[in-house]
Amino acid sequence: MSTVYTRPLARLIEQLQRLPGIGPKSAQRLALHLLKRPESEIQALAQALLDAKQQVGVCGVCFHLSAEPVCDICRTPTREDSVICVVADSRDVIAIEKTREYRGKYHVLGGLISPMDGIGPEQLQIHPLIQRASQERVIEVILAINPSIEGETTTLYLGQLLKPFVKVTRIAFGLPVGGDLEYADEMTLAKALEGRRELE
Amino acid sequence: MSTVYTRPLARLIEQLQRLPGIGPKSAQRLALHLLKRPESEIQALAQALLDAKQQVGVCGVCFHLSAEPVCDICRTPTREDSVICVVADSRDVIAIEKTREYRGKYHVLGGLISPMDGIGPEQLQIHPLIQRASQERVIEVILAINPSIEGETTTLYLGQLLKPFVKVTRIAFGLPVGGDLEYADEMTLAKALEGRRELE
Repeated sequence: MSTVYTRPLARLIEQLQRLPGIGPKSAQRLALHLLKRPESEIQALAQALLDAKQQVGVCGVCFHLSAEPVCDICRTPTREDSVICVVADSRDVIAIEKTREYRGKYHVLGGLISPMDGIGPEQLQIHPLIQRASQERVIEVILAINPSIEGETTTLYLGQLLKPFVKVTRIAFGLPVGGDLEYADEMTLAKALEGRRELE
Repeated sequence: MSTVYTRPLARLIEQLQRLPGIGPKSAQRLALHLLKRPESEIQALAQALLDAKQQVGVCGVCFHLSAEPVCDICRTPTREDSVICVVADSRDVIAIEKTREYRGKYHVLGGLISPMDGIGPEQLQIHPLIQRASQERVIEVILAINPSIEGETTTLYLGQLLKPFVKVTRIAFGLPVGGDLEYADEMTLAKALEGRRELE
């Protein structure tokens, strides 16, 4: 393809093809679309890419994505300090926030325990979670983790660690087993939060 | 969403959502994927965007996308000067080049006549095509234009203009009517080129 498309265009197509879910045809369509846009728009996109990469890190408390040392959610004084909702990924925080049903704090693990992929508990933000959960003001930890094999493993592992000193619940199986938390609709997610039960 | 995602990330998601075929969920997935990549990769993508926009224009002869004043295809001395293949868009050049069946030159119109969208012949590169086609060395103009309503209109219009001084053919209807030239497979396109017939 590079012998037909002029070099800078071929390079852009190559770069776009590295993105998840973008195949050769989509990359070509996107690149040709972008060439037709005004230069200011391309600069805005390029700048947004660089800014996001340079400015966004994780919250020092809950490990949600944040441009500040402590994220907006952790800094909101009206949110309950007594409940921590544990999720695998920042996307799950967004999904739960959209239900508008939850007023506590979060803890983002950064993944799930998956021996097959070489991800053990030490690769996840589990130690900081234990520290947070052992503070006196914390009365409940909600595990909002996908019901996949890795999710079940992680849920069981965290349950064992946390139950000695805090109430541990998990969201109800309102979401379809094998489904992805991120893609559940707001109603289902809200039901799942509401119907949470204590880990036996 | 912007109140939950940190500002630079929300901005990147907004920017990605402007792209064709990228909805809010895809934009979010792409943005979070990009944040996990090394900074060098993000810089390469941003640079490729800026370079493509700044360096890629159109060929002064055939109007195919090009970083040079005259494109690679027009500059290739082994390609036949006697045949010009007329297409709507640069993507169609790529599609035909992939068949490896065509050794002539191209002419990119930059669209199709579409009164509904306010696109008349004067918005397209038709005048330069007439000039090229009236040169003595040109013996055939192949119209490789989608069999849509706009495509038929453009084909008829170009036929009337060109037939007085050059042989005008169009690619065979090997491609399914209502389909898109860009998405035809190489075999079908090659057949369509091979079976071209003179415009009555």
